[in-house]
Amino acid sequence: MIYFDDIVLNQPLVSRPFLVEKADSIAFAREWDPQPFHIDEQAASQWPLGLTASGLHTIAIAVKLGNELSTEPVAVIAGLGWDEVRLKAPVKPGDSLVLHSWMEEKRASQSKPDRGIVVTRIELRNQNDEIVLTYKVTSMMLKKPA
Amino acid sequence: MIYFDDIVLNQPLVSRPFLVEKADSIAFAREWDPQPFHIDEQAASQWPLGLTASGLHTIAIAVKLGNELSTEPVAVIAGLGWDEVRLKAPVKPGDSLVLHSWMEEKRASQSKPDRGIVVTRIELRNQNDEIVLTYKVTSMMLKKPA
Repeated sequence: MIYFDDIVLNQPLVSRPFLVEKADSIAFAREWDPQPFHIDEQAASQWPLGLTASGLHTIAIAVKLGNELSTEPVAVIAGLGWDEVRLKAPVKPGDSLVLHSWMEEKRASQSKPDRGIVVTRIELRNQNDEIVLTYKVTSMMLKKPA
Repeated sequence: MIYFDDIVLNQPLVSRPFLVEKADSIAFAREWDPQPFHIDEQAASQWPLGLTASGLHTIAIAVKLGNELSTEPVAVIAGLGWDEVRLKAPVKPGDSLVLHSWMEEKRASQSKPDRGIVVTRIELRNQNDEIVLTYKVTSMMLKKPA
């Protein structure tokens, strides 16, 4: 188990590539974000950006790849929030996305001596090394039991 | 079609209730956020909050309900970003969530005369009227064609 105490700042981890399949992208958007430019190729061709993945799907891919980065379980108790989520470039079917992630900040909790707060920086890049998504996640972690 | 020009600020819309089913919550987390306290009821019972929905699943529910609020298509071109995403209380299987949403800000684009930027405030409440999620979404919209 990786505890708050084990967290080292500013050490980037890099994920495997994740291929955005057109059928998956449309199926995800049909369930969660059914806007025409995410679910209907013909309607999307009338839109400035054409058929794109839902921003929510892009974020889901980042969360999935982030979960795979650690080989050991991490003692996260709860996600507290996300900040500065920026969809910086459209994600299109056929894109291959890679996550870059590092711990940016850690501080012990003032009120709960067994816990700490960590801030993780998330960056998702496409096959052209163009950044498509950035955000930071604030999480509560357990300290190592005494 | 609802254009940038049609947007009226500070008029809250309220969604239907969305029931968080345990099986759906576990299935979503298995695919996108497979942490033990989201996918394994027995393991989760050792965790401070027990079995909870993934924060990503909670956000997906908000996006889905948000899409249902408008009876007419909305001329959104692209989501630009989300700010101050706060997971304020855990979401548990059996919870029933309702979205409250309103437009908080609008401004014409400086560089593109056919477009404008709108900021939407999102608030998700459970069956006890407790806020479980808040965030704001910044989107680009088309102005009404001349």
